[in-house]
Amino acid sequence: MTTPPASESVRVRRLPDRGAYDAATIHPILDEAPFAHVGITVDGQPFVIPTIHARIDETLYLHGSPASRLLRTAKGPTRVCVTVSIVDGLVLARSAFHHSMNYRSVVVLGDAVEVTDEDEKMRAFEALVEQVCPGRWEGCRIPNAKEINSTLVVKLALTEASAKVRTGGPVDDAEDLGLDVWAGVVPVSAAFGVAEPATDLGDGIGLPDHVAALGR
Amino acid sequence: MTTPPASESVRVRRLPDRGAYDAATIHPILDEAPFAHVGITVDGQPFVIPTIHARIDETLYLHGSPASRLLRTAKGPTRVCVTVSIVDGLVLARSAFHHSMNYRSVVVLGDAVEVTDEDEKMRAFEALVEQVCPGRWEGCRIPNAKEINSTLVVKLALTEASAKVRTGGPVDDAEDLGLDVWAGVVPVSAAFGVAEPATDLGDGIGLPDHVAALGR
Repeated sequence: MTTPPASESVRVRRLPDRGAYDAATIHPILDEAPFAHVGITVDGQPFVIPTIHARIDETLYLHGSPASRLLRTAKGPTRVCVTVSIVDGLVLARSAFHHSMNYRSVVVLGDAVEVTDEDEKMRAFEALVEQVCPGRWEGCRIPNAKEINSTLVVKLALTEASAKVRTGGPVDDAEDLGLDVWAGVVPVSAAFGVAEPATDLGDGIGLPDHVAALGR
Repeated sequence: MTTPPASESVRVRRLPDRGAYDAATIHPILDEAPFAHVGITVDGQPFVIPTIHARIDETLYLHGSPASRLLRTAKGPTRVCVTVSIVDGLVLARSAFHHSMNYRSVVVLGDAVEVTDEDEKMRAFEALVEQVCPGRWEGCRIPNAKEINSTLVVKLALTEASAKVRTGGPVDDAEDLGLDVWAGVVPVSAAFGVAEPATDLGDGIGLPDHVAALGR
């Protein structure tokens, strides 16, 4: 038995077989995605802004400057849409029409509200830093009171969320299978290059394991 | 002299030094981005949907099923926001607070309108396929009349657009420079894996140059 969507808004309409609504599908995609695109609406105009995100249990956190349009608006609370997308491959079919991508995406709808509790804010900062580079929180200077106060953190519950996943090879029409056209999948992934030390890095500070681990 | 923003809506407010409004900055970012996130608003709820895009001169094209919520809504015309984001590196500072990313992003605001001219639709299909895999259009079966009719294409003008770019190393506070913390940049890029032929690919169809070129 599959988990049903939490609301009509979040139901996957196009190619519903690719949709899923269970935490076991949604959480790993949110956790793997390096960043998110957040949608807000201001005076009828949608805005889509790239930003980093982090999940703690059933809550999604975003952060930014108190002056940012995104989070100033989201202070309300305001309806937002947080979407993450991971591309796993280009799907090259015989026909242009059946070209596709293998991907894993999650859409979260919800009311973003400001986090005011200082302990919760600190846990959100930790999760945000760890989302980008696991192990980094222990390896850097954590925020002081001034920095905590000058950063806005908002959260939304992972109640209205859906995942959409495509895997596998191209699916061509029967009449195209005989064409002299190469078809298949080209895998895509994110790659980390060689870490470049800051020009003002002190002598004798070697590359820490948590940074070296990114390349593996 | 720098190009001013075309409208207040598209002006970069946060860290305005990172903003740019000229085609020489905006076009290459749109052309390099493998896909976009499109924002629409339906009954006050923003939705952000990943999709591929393509640029021809000063016009941005999107496509999808006529039944898709995104493009059904956009048939109006409807205000949309198309955002592309390319991450170039993780910026690891001594302080958690100054962690950042090197990135290039573009935000386009506009009215998406349906493309009904068949020749323009075909040029849009070509641009969309070439956006994903340069050279592929000549190497696959192009859409027939039925496929053209069962795909919706919308376009918007690149008049209200802004780019935001961050480059360079971490910028730490002076009092943190002496900390025993590694700081620097870890480059990030998209990598293509070894192409996997379709299981039903005919014998003797070798990997074409345009697919092999993706890995280089």
